[in-house]
Amino acid sequence: MNEATEVTLAQWRARIDGALARVTANGAPLPEKVRDAVHYSLTGEGKRLRGLLVLAAYEALGGKGNAVGLAAAVEIVHAYSLVHDDLPCMDNDHIRRGRPTTHRAFGVATATVAGVAMVALAVTQAVQAAETLGLSADVTKRLVSVLMQSSGATGMVGGQLMDLMSEGREIPVKQLEAIHRAKTGALIAASVTLGGLAAGGSAAAVDALAKAGESLGLAFQIADDVLDATASSEALGKSAGADAKLEKSTYVSTMGVQAAKAHGEALVADAMQRLQAAGLKNGPLLELARFVAARRS
Amino acid sequence: MNEATEVTLAQWRARIDGALARVTANGAPLPEKVRDAVHYSLTGEGKRLRGLLVLAAYEALGGKGNAVGLAAAVEIVHAYSLVHDDLPCMDNDHIRRGRPTTHRAFGVATATVAGVAMVALAVTQAVQAAETLGLSADVTKRLVSVLMQSSGATGMVGGQLMDLMSEGREIPVKQLEAIHRAKTGALIAASVTLGGLAAGGSAAAVDALAKAGESLGLAFQIADDVLDATASSEALGKSAGADAKLEKSTYVSTMGVQAAKAHGEALVADAMQRLQAAGLKNGPLLELARFVAARRS
Repeated sequence: MNEATEVTLAQWRARIDGALARVTANGAPLPEKVRDAVHYSLTGEGKRLRGLLVLAAYEALGGKGNAVGLAAAVEIVHAYSLVHDDLPCMDNDHIRRGRPTTHRAFGVATATVAGVAMVALAVTQAVQAAETLGLSADVTKRLVSVLMQSSGATGMVGGQLMDLMSEGREIPVKQLEAIHRAKTGALIAASVTLGGLAAGGSAAAVDALAKAGESLGLAFQIADDVLDATASSEALGKSAGADAKLEKSTYVSTMGVQAAKAHGEALVADAMQRLQAAGLKNGPLLELARFVAARRS
Repeated sequence: MNEATEVTLAQWRARIDGALARVTANGAPLPEKVRDAVHYSLTGEGKRLRGLLVLAAYEALGGKGNAVGLAAAVEIVHAYSLVHDDLPCMDNDHIRRGRPTTHRAFGVATATVAGVAMVALAVTQAVQAAETLGLSADVTKRLVSVLMQSSGATGMVGGQLMDLMSEGREIPVKQLEAIHRAKTGALIAASVTLGGLAAGGSAAAVDALAKAGESLGLAFQIADDVLDATASSEALGKSAGADAKLEKSTYVSTMGVQAAKAHGEALVADAMQRLQAAGLKNGPLLELARFVAARRS
């Protein structure tokens, strides 16, 4: 990786981490146990890929303000999805990012409530970020709408559920792709879209970003499937081999490790090409796309 | 009840019901099972008190547009709270509004996901409503913020959890009041505040509405406690006597039925006085306050 880009990304990650750590300190007081659970969920180890994509897309389209609040909003939605994904009624996972999952640490009721509180906090955070950036009413509305669509109805929670319903039975690749697009792709695509919208990018540029984000999101999920099948629990910071145990249909179970890897690489190449065709030569954004292609955890 | 007011409220209720039935038809497609669960949760029998309060407050402060979308947004948040409140990890209720609870009808995973999707749908609905009403960016932001605060962190979900934590032990009246204010009061206060804000009411008028809403919300919850202890399951459309079974601290367990009733009446009187002092002589709003005082189910 280019050293300057590496430093930029490390600085951005630190600023996102800082914003996430402050979410429970600022604003309206939460009941103590919920606050602790939200704080715990937001401050676990994480790549902050989605937040970094917000900032990289924002910068790529010429944004000059402080968009860290918007990056944090996306990471809050992501963290909520992990908390609910791990619940006993969902995947019933016990380890996440190398620590007990939120419901193991705080109980199922608190984890359920904390997840919903996080969705509300993400909206509040996004609205505040829009205010900080001096964005218009129209853009603010679009930001909230993109964030909620990716997190709510059509996006992540829908994908999560389709995923759950697919357990124990084989499903066709097309349906698998729909699940993965909704489950992971939606928020990753939303991240670059939000950054682009906040920067005031042209419709064409934002569209190119969104399409590249969709390819990246799908590639990211395919890499997830490959890692679940090939990496150790220690390297992942969560239980490896969980998909096979749950008899989930994955890219690996459907097309094998090698073909899944090749499919993922083709998607990243597609994303890169879209970004470059749109004239986006920005370092961090291409670097993050490369990260998705080469991810090891 | 004044006959004209009665007709107005019935018409409003029908329009809110219509909007709720259309939530899952419009906009982004949901996975079928989630859509069915959301539709089921939104179309159960209900008084639509919160939605009516939005419209009554809107009209009371001179609003002339169509605020039904905003009323629906509040009802979606309310419906979400019922779905999650009934979950096995919360109250584990089996009947709600005379039908199986959402998780009994669709499973715990689908009900959990549907609840979160509803929070996202409520935000989207509120933003669309603000657009329909031609509201400014500032007012739109305040609407989203009030809605999320009442539903998320400090509001309902917080109250729900404090409530849960109080099961099996006696708690002081002051703490009980904090729980009830957060659990029911927050969304009822938010309803009138949202209506007032959307109508472009003065800060003083909106503040008077909000304070009256807080008293009404608390009175409503006290009536809930009284009904749980005194009415039949049939009349309530949910399991009566549940509080005693769960050894919950309620106004009835803490101060007895008579004193709880008197406290509720005093709160409604306070709300009425605030509304009248603020020059609000509007029929529907006072009628709804009277309904809270006299509720039988």
